[in-house]
Amino acid sequence: MLGVCYYPEHWPQSMWKKDAEEMRELGLTYVRLAEFAWSKMEPEEGVYDFEWLDSAIQILAEKGLKVILCTPTATPPKWLIDKFPDILPVDINTGVTRGFGSRRHYDFSSKNYHRESMRISEVMATRYANNPAVVGWQTDNELACHDTTHSGSENAKHAFHLWLEKYYGDIDSLNKAWGTIFWSMEYQRFDQIELPILAVTETHPSHQLAYRRFSSEQVINYHNDMIDVLSKHCPKHFMTHNFIPMTDTQADNFALAEKLDFACYDNYPLGRTDLFFADSDTDTFKRYMRTGHPDFSSCSFDQIRGISNDNFWIMEQQPGPVNWAHHNPRPLPGMVRLWSWEAVAHGAETICYFRWRQAAFGQEQMHAGIKRVDNSKSPAWFETEQFRDELAETGFDLKAKVHTSVAIIMSIENQWVTEIERQGDSFSHQLVEFEYYSALRQLGIDVDFVSSNDNLADYKMIVVPCMPVVSDELIDKLADSQAHVIFGPRSGAKTDELTFAPNLGPGNIQRLIPIQVESTETLRADCTMKMLYKGASYLGSRWNEALSIGDKVNTVAQFHNKQAAVVQNDKVTYVATLCEIEFLRVLLNDIALACDIKTYQLPEDIRLSQRGNFGVFFNYSGQAKRVEFDRDVEFVLGSEEIAPYSLSIFKRN
Amino acid sequence: MLGVCYYPEHWPQSMWKKDAEEMRELGLTYVRLAEFAWSKMEPEEGVYDFEWLDSAIQILAEKGLKVILCTPTATPPKWLIDKFPDILPVDINTGVTRGFGSRRHYDFSSKNYHRESMRISEVMATRYANNPAVVGWQTDNELACHDTTHSGSENAKHAFHLWLEKYYGDIDSLNKAWGTIFWSMEYQRFDQIELPILAVTETHPSHQLAYRRFSSEQVINYHNDMIDVLSKHCPKHFMTHNFIPMTDTQADNFALAEKLDFACYDNYPLGRTDLFFADSDTDTFKRYMRTGHPDFSSCSFDQIRGISNDNFWIMEQQPGPVNWAHHNPRPLPGMVRLWSWEAVAHGAETICYFRWRQAAFGQEQMHAGIKRVDNSKSPAWFETEQFRDELAETGFDLKAKVHTSVAIIMSIENQWVTEIERQGDSFSHQLVEFEYYSALRQLGIDVDFVSSNDNLADYKMIVVPCMPVVSDELIDKLADSQAHVIFGPRSGAKTDELTFAPNLGPGNIQRLIPIQVESTETLRADCTMKMLYKGASYLGSRWNEALSIGDKVNTVAQFHNKQAAVVQNDKVTYVATLCEIEFLRVLLNDIALACDIKTYQLPEDIRLSQRGNFGVFFNYSGQAKRVEFDRDVEFVLGSEEIAPYSLSIFKRN
Amino acid sequence: MLGVCYYPEHWPQSMWKKDAEEMRELGLTYVRLAEFAWSKMEPEEGVYDFEWLDSAIQILAEKGLKVILCTPTATPPKWLIDKFPDILPVDINTGVTRGFGSRRHYDFSSKNYHRESMRISEVMATRYANNPAVVGWQTDNELACHDTTHSGSENAKHAFHLWLEKYYGDIDSLNKAWGTIFWSMEYQRFDQIELPILAVTETHPSHQLAYRRFSSEQVINYHNDMIDVLSKHCPKHFMTHNFIPMTDTQADNFALAEKLDFACYDNYPLGRTDLFFADSDTDTFKRYMRTGHPDFSSCSFDQIRGISNDNFWIMEQQPGPVNWAHHNPRPLPGMVRLWSWEAVAHGAETICYFRWRQAAFGQEQMHAGIKRVDNSKSPAWFETEQFRDELAETGFDLKAKVHTSVAIIMSIENQWVTEIERQGDSFSHQLVEFEYYSALRQLGIDVDFVSSNDNLADYKMIVVPCMPVVSDELIDKLADSQAHVIFGPRSGAKTDELTFAPNLGPGNIQRLIPIQVESTETLRADCTMKMLYKGASYLGSRWNEALSIGDKVNTVAQFHNKQAAVVQNDKVTYVATLCEIEFLRVLLNDIALACDIKTYQLPEDIRLSQRGNFGVFFNYSGQAKRVEFDRDVEFVLGSEEIAPYSLSIFKRN
Repeated sequence: MLGVCYYPEHWPQSMWKKDAEEMRELGLTYVRLAEFAWSKMEPEEGVYDFEWLDSAIQILAEKGLKVILCTPTATPPKWLIDKFPDILPVDINTGVTRGFGSRRHYDFSSKNYHRESMRISEVMATRYANNPAVVGWQTDNELACHDTTHSGSENAKHAFHLWLEKYYGDIDSLNKAWGTIFWSMEYQRFDQIELPILAVTETHPSHQLAYRRFSSEQVINYHNDMIDVLSKHCPKHFMTHNFIPMTDTQADNFALAEKLDFACYDNYPLGRTDLFFADSDTDTFKRYMRTGHPDFSSCSFDQIRGISNDNFWIMEQQPGPVNWAHHNPRPLPGMVRLWSWEAVAHGAETICYFRWRQAAFGQEQMHAGIKRVDNSKSPAWFETEQFRDELAETGFDLKAKVHTSVAIIMSIENQWVTEIERQGDSFSHQLVEFEYYSALRQLGIDVDFVSSNDNLADYKMIVVPCMPVVSDELIDKLADSQAHVIFGPRSGAKTDELTFAPNLGPGNIQRLIPIQVESTETLRADCTMKMLYKGASYLGSRWNEALSIGDKVNTVAQFHNKQAAVVQNDKVTYVATLCEIEFLRVLLNDIALACDIKTYQLPEDIRLSQRGNFGVFFNYSGQAKRVEFDRDVEFVLGSEEIAPYSLSIFKRN
Repeated sequence: MLGVCYYPEHWPQSMWKKDAEEMRELGLTYVRLAEFAWSKMEPEEGVYDFEWLDSAIQILAEKGLKVILCTPTATPPKWLIDKFPDILPVDINTGVTRGFGSRRHYDFSSKNYHRESMRISEVMATRYANNPAVVGWQTDNELACHDTTHSGSENAKHAFHLWLEKYYGDIDSLNKAWGTIFWSMEYQRFDQIELPILAVTETHPSHQLAYRRFSSEQVINYHNDMIDVLSKHCPKHFMTHNFIPMTDTQADNFALAEKLDFACYDNYPLGRTDLFFADSDTDTFKRYMRTGHPDFSSCSFDQIRGISNDNFWIMEQQPGPVNWAHHNPRPLPGMVRLWSWEAVAHGAETICYFRWRQAAFGQEQMHAGIKRVDNSKSPAWFETEQFRDELAETGFDLKAKVHTSVAIIMSIENQWVTEIERQGDSFSHQLVEFEYYSALRQLGIDVDFVSSNDNLADYKMIVVPCMPVVSDELIDKLADSQAHVIFGPRSGAKTDELTFAPNLGPGNIQRLIPIQVESTETLRADCTMKMLYKGASYLGSRWNEALSIGDKVNTVAQFHNKQAAVVQNDKVTYVATLCEIEFLRVLLNDIALACDIKTYQLPEDIRLSQRGNFGVFFNYSGQAKRVEFDRDVEFVLGSEEIAPYSLSIFKRN
Repeated sequence: MLGVCYYPEHWPQSMWKKDAEEMRELGLTYVRLAEFAWSKMEPEEGVYDFEWLDSAIQILAEKGLKVILCTPTATPPKWLIDKFPDILPVDINTGVTRGFGSRRHYDFSSKNYHRESMRISEVMATRYANNPAVVGWQTDNELACHDTTHSGSENAKHAFHLWLEKYYGDIDSLNKAWGTIFWSMEYQRFDQIELPILAVTETHPSHQLAYRRFSSEQVINYHNDMIDVLSKHCPKHFMTHNFIPMTDTQADNFALAEKLDFACYDNYPLGRTDLFFADSDTDTFKRYMRTGHPDFSSCSFDQIRGISNDNFWIMEQQPGPVNWAHHNPRPLPGMVRLWSWEAVAHGAETICYFRWRQAAFGQEQMHAGIKRVDNSKSPAWFETEQFRDELAETGFDLKAKVHTSVAIIMSIENQWVTEIERQGDSFSHQLVEFEYYSALRQLGIDVDFVSSNDNLADYKMIVVPCMPVVSDELIDKLADSQAHVIFGPRSGAKTDELTFAPNLGPGNIQRLIPIQVESTETLRADCTMKMLYKGASYLGSRWNEALSIGDKVNTVAQFHNKQAAVVQNDKVTYVATLCEIEFLRVLLNDIALACDIKTYQLPEDIRLSQRGNFGVFFNYSGQAKRVEFDRDVEFVLGSEEIAPYSLSIFKRN
């Protein structure tokens, strides 16, 4: 299904009917409304104006469109801030209050804001509970965007004290759990504890981890309370939220999505590629600047599918150049269509484009829309038409599930651990995870991102790129599963409180493979080390561990100084270093074959995704490329010769 | 004429007479005094000490020197700050008060400081109104230097509220003009509006633009009030101000200069080159590090001439290494003379050197002077002598005007627009303007910088490198003129309130050439695109627009993907991309020839400037270079073979 | 002798006895205790708990180990901060209070903290004065670490006022000494003077210098008062302090060490190399990333020896990867042993390793120890054993002194001068000093770092890499000495108040060599200049002076533009530029030979140190290297073929 994000309040009411007609013409089903519209809905405290929204919904409904409403809580209006200044969050890096003037200017720990957010949500829910055109709700907008999960306010400090007391029970338990004896930080009372910010040098890692857990819970509690308010009045409406990349929410994404009917992702391939690959050399950067990196959005799709309780949606799909990256190129012709298919191939059920018409004012006026400011049609219109028609022609099943036997375990807590104790400037949790993911994708392998709480029994291969904290429960589960498990370096090295594994790294993973990390080093990214695997030479880098190796463990790759780089037994492969993707591709291919998982030798820049009975080849290059593929499939779009910046779709019988 | 900046209060009175004698020996006419001397003139509140200044003026006058006095307001003394702490400005990036201890520590919105500034100005004006040696006044010093146009103070906020009310009349007009409906920013009252700083993410562009307009007016009002005070008491004295580069004042330079008899520029070729070209590679950087870039100072000269009501002055001319750039090289022998001639060739009437004698203490003690700390003569002395003699020998007419048929339209509001909505990190308004300017200068074309309010009727070619906001009046004027107009990308794309042109870019320029900007992209500076012009290949980069093209518009350059890069009709050339200077040189040459404007194929590093009956060739290279030139001119200094780091002067009969 | 830093409070008491036994097994003599243990010793105000410490000392004593106690003042506990919040320092770059949560969170100007620090010191001193196992005290920990010498607090401001009044007597003297007439900064009273921070632009250099002098004295007074408290109660115990590199203390290191029996250094070759050489290219960086730069630690050893009243100690020796640099590599096998020998060869009497056992929690859990978290032995254990045995076998005399005829004059005040008035971004005082030092070391020359107050009579060659402020007393002393003196650029250029030398640079050095600095330029580091010395070409860079040259002065090196680069007379060599180490090596070799100082043509990466009757060759490379050496020495360890990453020791008869 298709949809769009629409801000009728930005345009004369005289345009709305024509807009609705054109939305139908384009084949849209859903229209998202009212995001950021608090000051329009409640121009003064307690004075509501919903007539404009009623009209907009009615006009859309008359054309058969279904409406998704948003709570407007990402943008509290000025009169509310003036009444309750403690709504404003405090920057944890400077201690300065983050003022009114943009968006997300609220503190999750402000009780005033919590109350007001639930109030406006309830007012909306009550009003639209029985409006037949309204089918669902988006909570807030892009929770955590602009680094808003953390606040350094007094509100946050008081809430942190209560959270700590609840979590640790008594102060001695906290002192012991953290090891506050280090640097004379023993506390007598919870209310003595500062936020772990603005100190002379780095603060205690356990203290930082607790603060991140607390902050994450503040977001989740706020969000869950909002869902409860909405669900109470609108039990038949679906509830969703539009997520930014998992790595950026700084909250437990699985928990955040738990009460949602399904999760949405806001997909901006070019903006994200510009930020994530900002340090790349000219050739690499230029290569993907107008297509996005072939694995970046896919990775987010697979991650959002992992947290969603049903097939996910794209709530905001980039339709052209955006305004917020360092540089904002124009997508190559065909890419909006390709990205839409890519989302669908990874499990999306609905694609909504952001936005209907480019805004004529405000911070995002350089962000493209399906229509331009002068109401002409941008290229995205035509690519959406093509995508709409291809969906119909191919009969692609948008309800189907993605099935795969390969999973990556994802965990925000472990991301925090690596961010808090970075140990080397060249270490990036997100990059490490991405490298393993990209290697799998280059092999044509579909990937599930799972929580360690999920059922893992059905997987043949489980990849754990970077998981310093591994629970005993997970070890049990992995031991019981049939899967071969691949651990990246640093796995199991830490306890749940970010203290050192008493039996050294990889901690309780030693139950699966008898090895110990004798020491760890980090290196500048350009200071690589040659390693040998099956006679070929590859590069290790950034993070290297020295292992001692127990019974029935084989060294399968080693550095030139004879230090083991990769070790293996029947159950586990442990990669004791970071390394180039090329090596991971070769290593994971060998393991996959041993696990009886099909892999593909895809041409460069070609990716393959399979969902239900369908499969899609994507070509991120400017040259047509031929794939060798199973003879029992039928191409329903394109052929084995994948056109440049295009795709081919096959169906299994 | 020649002059110098002199701080007698830094030296024993016993030296003053000899100083005055030597100034005469050097051929100086003017001496600037009393800048920064507030604490000396008023050591305690209301207790004045002018005897030292009276003496200094008398001693100089006895040697026939003329005195320019400065208001000392760039450096309020400590007792004044202690009495009125609200004088101190607030840093807009941190919210921290910018304290006493250097200079320019005042807030243009402080009423206390406004009153005190006018008081000390009036005290000085009253005292020296009838002193026959005093001929003119410099207001303050380098207004806006050190980013002081903007303050984040409560004073500024209150003044902003009043300004907004005056500008918009009622709050609904403001809400509508800005589009505050975006992100729920609708206001009920003017006093709700914060300064657009320290928010969670970027603030509203219209809000930012209003704040910049307000801040500019605060500077202008302060400055105009000071001129009024001085003029009232000293009606026969000239009034001037020493400007920093136009781009750095963050104020409307035309308005700022309006009440002045003429404008001055402080010319520091090496310091400015070090800052502006800081990211250049070794060869490029090294090439000009001891000469300055051949077009940087020239550009400032032409800009200051543009805002001046008469021929401009250089109030501070770099005489040797300075102290404030990242690196501070020594000028190559001859460059102080060359720079002096360069200023004169671009329209300067008087060159004052900064400073007479290198300071023995304080922040600028590493800044060279004409004389050294030990009172010996630095190389600048001898180069000034040479320049003095050459002025006399050549009979160069310092009263003559520069006449040219080529203008660049300059606008601080448009600079603001591009700074507020940068859209790509690789976009720099100053650089774009400089590229067009440099291309013209490499063709030997003299350039006027004009305001869109100026009379443009006499120009044959008008260049608009970057002007998102174009008024209807300007379009009318351009339509009526005979000139061919060259617009750079982004022109006309915005309204006066920094909202999107309703008819898309280039907005009302479409009245001159029927094209529309269908989309805009920005690219990393190193990710260039090849474009073809008359069979040759050039590089576009950073900012590219996709155009739709109407009747009688020709595509004269296009990218390899067939996208138009430059389009043209009889009246207008529209360049839809940023590009290398080499291309601009070729394109502008072709247009100039078509407009019957003479261009020159100058050797590399050679520049030509013409003023009155004289013309000067400058050689910024280390090799002698020969120019082919009109046969009807007579060389009065040098010859067609321009010596390294030197110049040749010719005269037309 | 050998020792270790031990934190028994981090481990169960049940482990202590075994720890003590193993310490003896390893051959250790000293154990440092109680650092950072304030919250353990005084868990609540006035409630002391020393039983654990008594026990730990007793257990260690039973095994014959000697204890060094630390005052715990680097980590005031939370209850103390809550009682006296004014203990917290203020960041001079942001004005924000530096909070509790890490370490060194105290302001040297807080009277409350001064009193409390002396109190806890006295409590400890009283308790352990007569404990026979306790032999000495370490004051605080790494004074000034984390940029804590300077605070922007109100406490600091008030103390600064008192200091200024004492230093200058009356305000007119201060005004005159600084030259506050510059930029209207004349003061009427001391209490008007702000700290020289957070101003609009750079503050007055004399003001900054006074603030640094004041801040240094605050550290020294605090430290001296603590020594007085300890010494009063423990007159037979030695007093020491563990210094960070001299350049980082921002205090007068000679004065700071004056009351100590000897000084200690905390030696982290890899962490320091990573920070100091952070901008190096890949090959250079990679070459030393696991060995440390061959001259960095040596330089610190020689500097610490210079401030020590007896042979120095290493109080903390890196035993493996650390946690605090940008990247933290593993030392190559053998380097811990090599570094230990290197310290000894440069004059160390005792080497203590940091730490006994890697911490299981807190900020430093990734910092290696002699033992791992699981109590297994890390490689450092075995290298310490080897070092212990080699010390015994070679009979190396740890009481011997280093004797050399070459000295470098070191001065924190001059470092401040260059930091305050940097003049070029490419100028680094530490780097300049290091370049001269490294050149001498590459010639096999042992180097003393001395104060200008020291007796210099016995040196043959005195090197002054960068000393803008040179006292008349030093000139007298140098004139009276037999030594040839080598001055780097900038020497003598400033007065004691950071004003300009009235007779130009090199100021009073002109009494030794009649030259004058006519101008100074700074250049970007990559913009080098070729210079010629004895027919060979070298590179000058970054800082160049133009000299006028008087009688009997020879130009021995000059730039291609004929400008003098190095001038010389019988007494003095003046190097008027910064230059590559390779040139300094050649120049200093020639001067050394002329001074009858023996030099060596050592292979690359080989260094030689001599102490007493012993000499040690160190090999920082991966290849065995042969040295040609005097025939009258006997190798007691290794041979003339120095093994890779190893050393050879010879003895003179």
